[in-house]
Amino acid sequence: MPQIELYDTTLRDGAQTEGISYSVQDKLRITEQLDALGVHTIEGGWPGSNPKDAEFFRKARRLSLRSAKLAAFGSTRRASAGAAKDPNLRALLAAETPVVTIFGKSWDLHVRDVLRVSLEENLRLIEDSVAWLARHGRRVVYDAEHFFDGYRDNPEYALRTLQAAVAGGAETLALCDTNGGSLPSQITEGINAVQRRFSAPLGIHAHNDSDLAAANSVAAVQAGCRQVQGTVNGYGERCGNANLVSLIAILKLKLGIDCLPDAKLRELTEVAHFVAEVSNMAHDAHQPFVGETAFAHKGGVHVNAVMKNPRTYEHIEPATVGNQRRILVSELSGRSSLVFKAKDLALDLTRDTPQAKRMLRLLQQLEHRGYHFEAAEGSLELLLKRQLKRFKPFFTLGGFRIIIEKRDHKLMSEATIKVHVGKVTEQTAAEGDGPVNALDNAIRKALLKFYPSLARMHLTDFKVRVLDEKAATAARVRVLIQSQDEHESWGTVGVSENIIEASWQALVDSIEYKLLKDRARR
Amino acid sequence: MPQIELYDTTLRDGAQTEGISYSVQDKLRITEQLDALGVHTIEGGWPGSNPKDAEFFRKARRLSLRSAKLAAFGSTRRASAGAAKDPNLRALLAAETPVVTIFGKSWDLHVRDVLRVSLEENLRLIEDSVAWLARHGRRVVYDAEHFFDGYRDNPEYALRTLQAAVAGGAETLALCDTNGGSLPSQITEGINAVQRRFSAPLGIHAHNDSDLAAANSVAAVQAGCRQVQGTVNGYGERCGNANLVSLIAILKLKLGIDCLPDAKLRELTEVAHFVAEVSNMAHDAHQPFVGETAFAHKGGVHVNAVMKNPRTYEHIEPATVGNQRRILVSELSGRSSLVFKAKDLALDLTRDTPQAKRMLRLLQQLEHRGYHFEAAEGSLELLLKRQLKRFKPFFTLGGFRIIIEKRDHKLMSEATIKVHVGKVTEQTAAEGDGPVNALDNAIRKALLKFYPSLARMHLTDFKVRVLDEKAATAARVRVLIQSQDEHESWGTVGVSENIIEASWQALVDSIEYKLLKDRARR
Repeated sequence: MPQIELYDTTLRDGAQTEGISYSVQDKLRITEQLDALGVHTIEGGWPGSNPKDAEFFRKARRLSLRSAKLAAFGSTRRASAGAAKDPNLRALLAAETPVVTIFGKSWDLHVRDVLRVSLEENLRLIEDSVAWLARHGRRVVYDAEHFFDGYRDNPEYALRTLQAAVAGGAETLALCDTNGGSLPSQITEGINAVQRRFSAPLGIHAHNDSDLAAANSVAAVQAGCRQVQGTVNGYGERCGNANLVSLIAILKLKLGIDCLPDAKLRELTEVAHFVAEVSNMAHDAHQPFVGETAFAHKGGVHVNAVMKNPRTYEHIEPATVGNQRRILVSELSGRSSLVFKAKDLALDLTRDTPQAKRMLRLLQQLEHRGYHFEAAEGSLELLLKRQLKRFKPFFTLGGFRIIIEKRDHKLMSEATIKVHVGKVTEQTAAEGDGPVNALDNAIRKALLKFYPSLARMHLTDFKVRVLDEKAATAARVRVLIQSQDEHESWGTVGVSENIIEASWQALVDSIEYKLLKDRARR
Repeated sequence: MPQIELYDTTLRDGAQTEGISYSVQDKLRITEQLDALGVHTIEGGWPGSNPKDAEFFRKARRLSLRSAKLAAFGSTRRASAGAAKDPNLRALLAAETPVVTIFGKSWDLHVRDVLRVSLEENLRLIEDSVAWLARHGRRVVYDAEHFFDGYRDNPEYALRTLQAAVAGGAETLALCDTNGGSLPSQITEGINAVQRRFSAPLGIHAHNDSDLAAANSVAAVQAGCRQVQGTVNGYGERCGNANLVSLIAILKLKLGIDCLPDAKLRELTEVAHFVAEVSNMAHDAHQPFVGETAFAHKGGVHVNAVMKNPRTYEHIEPATVGNQRRILVSELSGRSSLVFKAKDLALDLTRDTPQAKRMLRLLQQLEHRGYHFEAAEGSLELLLKRQLKRFKPFFTLGGFRIIIEKRDHKLMSEATIKVHVGKVTEQTAAEGDGPVNALDNAIRKALLKFYPSLARMHLTDFKVRVLDEKAATAARVRVLIQSQDEHESWGTVGVSENIIEASWQALVDSIEYKLLKDRARR
């Protein structure tokens, strides 16, 4: 049992963010990352509310998680039927997770105005539901929705709802500031009151409506809460949930609570960016601890001081959370990580060669233009090998033309392409569902007779991000493509004002990377 | 003297944000807005550090501010010369502001490693500088840079630096958590220590590197600080400063401190958005209190409860800060939110009409296919009006063709289009940075002579999201376009397997919505 339990609800409460819509595959990928990071409990979804979440739990059984436990989320039973007949509770059991989290009403206002049952009936709903799940061998977390609002309005009743959960056999009582309206001092007061009455381990679930979610969670831990709930990057409805990324860093570095090993903490920035990518959300550059500007120094005074002693303007060492210092004027950062990456690829590159400097400059220029190699390891490897003259292209483009025509409510997309392979020229054409699909079909058709192994590769993911959104339809876009064959999966990237050009770059990298791998394998 | 002094440093510390670069005119406009809002002190810049800030102070004298006082910012004198000869201090006087804020070193680490003077010498720098400014009739705020870090490392010395400022005649001692690394409990501890020694009014200046800036400021006020420093929307270097917008709302609504009249508080959202526009920064939709999604309700459970009683999922009444409730019409939310939305648009639709059922079914089908009306109120209004036969199209499409050609490393995008307006047919062509930009240019060119007001409308945002990413380049995409004219801003949406078709739908909706608005305005 860890001293503090990190409880992630990105896949459930975080999925409520306007604009986020996870596929089952997305959820599985995020689950694996959170497990690898060392999060203790991962709330995967609400199986009773939608079939996608039920499917997630079916597929998640096949994951081999190292340390994390999965939790399924749902509500207490309806007033109209017993626990055994409640479809919501049955779906929770069917999810086959070791932990089940159910929320119930702790605020009498909700019982009266929303549930519209008597205060006593609500207590029975809570106790029954928890008891039924516990009887079926589940560890039950009871989420006391609106606990702090309820405690302010009717403290005695709020505490009685917890009593019902304890009587039912709840393992943990998670106190929720559902509307995000509480101050840290109110959180402390509520928790103290609960502790005077109950000995069960407590959790905290905070929302950020008052800009205080991190502080409220910290106050809760300082008051004795053992379980901290949050979401990666603070995703969640309205103003979001407590940001688990910030909380991990604060617990570990400010409160000295050993919730993750040091080595895992160094993966924090990477995980935060990974989840942002899969969520198709822009990174918040100013995000505490893991944002791109979190350790960026601009003005001369600061830069100068930081060179003398980084502590002067850095509250922590950036590398402890896997982030890095950025000196915006001199751009000194990054070379060691580049060298590290090159070593990874068995490329000959040391820190102080002119090559390393040149390559770093190139990488920085590309990233400045919007390239992003974190999720595009295929493109990064090709870039390094091209620069080190360790790569010979498998084909060159003669040219392509795409025609999209809309007439009589019908839309047609056709691509023609000319490629050279060695001394042979191949020209062909193909249609598609859209311009990029047509181009994809055409290039594969053209290359297949030279490289038959391309038949066993396919694209699995295609993401588009607009970079400078203010420029509207003339804005630059970044295209990320994920591809796979029977051996592995890889990402590639392209950037351009023209979405077709950006897609083309990523497509070409994807094919070249595949062919490079095949050659190495022979 | 107000009970709490709101001290804004958007124009000085906020201007350190990567990406923000204010013109003098921008600064003057923001100053007027902050004054109108009722902010008590406005720190306008560092006149000694750049000529633009000196010019701002010259021009700001001509503003007729209702209540705010201007403050000029600078550092203590250099060690090499007396106060009277220090160009920095002279520039502060020349700014002719009633308040002058100077920062000095309270952390012995900075004195040794950065200033590289003796600890005693640093005390003289502080006292001299404050005294010289006070002697020239200025009210001096002494910003104790890194006070909390200094207090943790060498408490006695940190307090002696404050003693020097008091001896020089400082009116307010502002305690700075410059690196943003402190916890609320540490803020409280530091302030208590200062209060045991000094009776001068205290201020708090917090940074958000630990996601705790708002909480640290609240803790400081609860411990007795009278001056609260912050920036609009939390702009500032690295992770930003304490967000004054959040702080105003918290002080007023959570702590019951009457720092602004109620009527001014209702302007908070507008001021936050105004400053974002002038700063050319995207609004943070999830920003506490004033973000677009701060009171947006999505899930059916929440929508249903909020209809019964808004307090169930709203920590404050949105109108108190000038924001509004948004019921996101989505497949999750059902008929009541649709009826609510229709009422909003003055459309005749009640819950139990067959029309309402039909419309909800249509909406659900569209959302299932990937449409997303949450951020596309323009498309939603058009859809409802089309269904209720309250809309006649302004033009019809004859057809379009887009050609994208890559040859000799050059890429060309050209669109030809034919539209009918009444009985007139217009055919034209345009190039663009990409296929969508070319199409956008062509349709505007074709319609402009019929609808000249389109010249005053422009697209401000363009987002692409791939829906079923597994289908890779054959996947459906959703395009969201944000447009604005001189009156307002609106969103529209399109969905298709073909990104061109999806963009076309959103473009057409954007134009039709604009024309519909114009007609209603006449």
